Amino acid sequence: MNEQNISSLVAAAIKDVIANSSSEMTLQKAKKLALLVEQEAERIGVKAVVAVSNSAARPVLVECMDDSYIASYDVAFNKAYTVVALKMSTSKLKGLSQPNEPLYGIQFTNQGQIVIFGGGEPLYVGGKIVGGLGVSGGSEEQDTYLAEFGAKAWEEL
Amino acid sequence: MNEQNISSLVAAAIKDVIANSSSEMTLQKAKKLALLVEQEAERIGVKAVVAVSNSAARPVLVECMDDSYIASYDVAFNKAYTVVALKMSTSKLKGLSQPNEPLYGIQFTNQGQIVIFGGGEPLYVGGKIVGGLGVSGGSEEQDTYLAEFGAKAWEEL
Amino acid sequence: MNEQNISSLVAAAIKDVIANSSSEMTLQKAKKLALLVEQEAERIGVKAVVAVSNSAARPVLVECMDDSYIASYDVAFNKAYTVVALKMSTSKLKGLSQPNEPLYGIQFTNQGQIVIFGGGEPLYVGGKIVGGLGVSGGSEEQDTYLAEFGAKAWEEL
Amino acid sequence: MNEQNISSLVAAAIKDVIANSSSEMTLQKAKKLALLVEQEAERIGVKAVVAVSNSAARPVLVECMDDSYIASYDVAFNKAYTVVALKMSTSKLKGLSQPNEPLYGIQFTNQGQIVIFGGGEPLYVGGKIVGGLGVSGGSEEQDTYLAEFGAKAWEEL
Repeated sequence: MNEQNISSLVAAAIKDVIANSSSEMTLQKAKKLALLVEQEAERIGVKAVVAVSNSAARPVLVECMDDSYIASYDVAFNKAYTVVALKMSTSKLKGLSQPNEPLYGIQFTNQGQIVIFGGGEPLYVGGKIVGGLGVSGGSEEQDTYLAEFGAKAWEEL
Repeated sequence: MNEQNISSLVAAAIKDVIANSSSEMTLQKAKKLALLVEQEAERIGVKAVVAVSNSAARPVLVECMDDSYIASYDVAFNKAYTVVALKMSTSKLKGLSQPNEPLYGIQFTNQGQIVIFGGGEPLYVGGKIVGGLGVSGGSEEQDTYLAEFGAKAWEEL
Repeated sequence: MNEQNISSLVAAAIKDVIANSSSEMTLQKAKKLALLVEQEAERIGVKAVVAVSNSAARPVLVECMDDSYIASYDVAFNKAYTVVALKMSTSKLKGLSQPNEPLYGIQFTNQGQIVIFGGGEPLYVGGKIVGGLGVSGGSEEQDTYLAEFGAKAWEEL
Repeated sequence: MNEQNISSLVAAAIKDVIANSSSEMTLQKAKKLALLVEQEAERIGVKAVVAVSNSAARPVLVECMDDSYIASYDVAFNKAYTVVALKMSTSKLKGLSQPNEPLYGIQFTNQGQIVIFGGGEPLYVGGKIVGGLGVSGGSEEQDTYLAEFGAKAWEEL
């Protein structure tokens, strides 16, 4: 094994270690993401609750913009859970869980934690889900837009 | 009562005792069944949660393959409950519980334990339900296939 | 009604409006408070979950420091609820809710939302409760210290 | 940087990557651990439910020995949750959660998931909690013994 081989091995190993550690959801990252979503919500006139979960679908952060819906707390929290627990956006799940569709009924199991309308997006690092984003407070269209906005912003963070 | 009568009565009684004892779900049998389902799941590329219940619809075993959906725990567990509690596969119940169908609404009772999509199969011994199998982790088609695979494997165990 | 009467009425009204508006809990203020508590937690080596509620005992913010206890989410959230819902710190409630004490039993009501150990403090503006702070992640002593630290920091904000 | 420096860097980096990947709880490891606990339970005449959780306090496996208590399913499951969610054995938590002790009351929050008697032990790899073991079915002394037996067996696995 020459120096060059060793060197590239070191580089790969270190890169891997760094990639793994940086792929974890942190409160710091979640705060940045939530702030971006809240600013966009403010821009479009939505008072949103923003929730971020980690790769185990456990909550990392929930923030309620002033005068947001009281019901939105549970909705946003559960969207952030759903997208990690089922590895798909709540918009996609929406289609699958309508009457006569393959997953109709999944909204009744899991202690009411499964949300089946738009506003929840998985957060990826290198193709791997590292957390989830749940937004609630506007129309379904607005929540979906904000969650997708957040998921894109996440990839740039 | 002559000797022949006594002899056949004894034979019947013994047969019954053996049949009953061998028909009970045990952890040993549940483990074997779960392993077969997990191996088949691996072969077709599904990361499944496998649950087995006994004739009282009580859990005997739940096993979560690595990286299976977090939400699949409750789904598989509840499928194994549903098939014994209602004595039918969750595929059959699916049809009965759609809007406007006879059992529409059953999914809202029983504290969210009734699953109404494929992936749950009763386990029989001699035409009698002795337990249930719940599989969750793939598409509904895959979960249904794996549960049916398991139910067949069970009959051969 | 003379000019002086009118003048002092106007003055009182304006003062009241200002006092009320500045006394409301906002996400902005909750974020500032949470950050101060998190920085203090880091300084003393505690990984805390910090929750802030408003004057209706509704959540405004929950933030989980990296590697904080999973169980601390519910505990911090419920502390922030308890202190507004009962208008006292959870440390004070602790004494009142021990066996044979006046409020023994309150911990079994309210759907498990009442926390009876230290780490929850009401947040005041002008002697009026405007929200609650819940901290969980260290020993009870540490959580109590951090919540009191936060309540003091709140008064200075 | 000479070859020796590079070599030891490679070694450290690889060691670290391996340590991290091998520290994750898997179904394979959970099955081995549960079998060992069940064999020991059988040896001492206890019919136990054995539950194993991962580092996120999510279930990996639950196995019910034949004729074990029906109530033991929830108890074992929740013990495996508790020890990861609070990073301590349920025996230690027992002391802390008695009336007049620092954490008295924690058993009433967290949706009834906190178990405060012996039979739950965290599972460590290199000083880090990678999962939890919950055992229920015998006396508290027996459950504690079996969980500690399992935690030791885990370190040798």
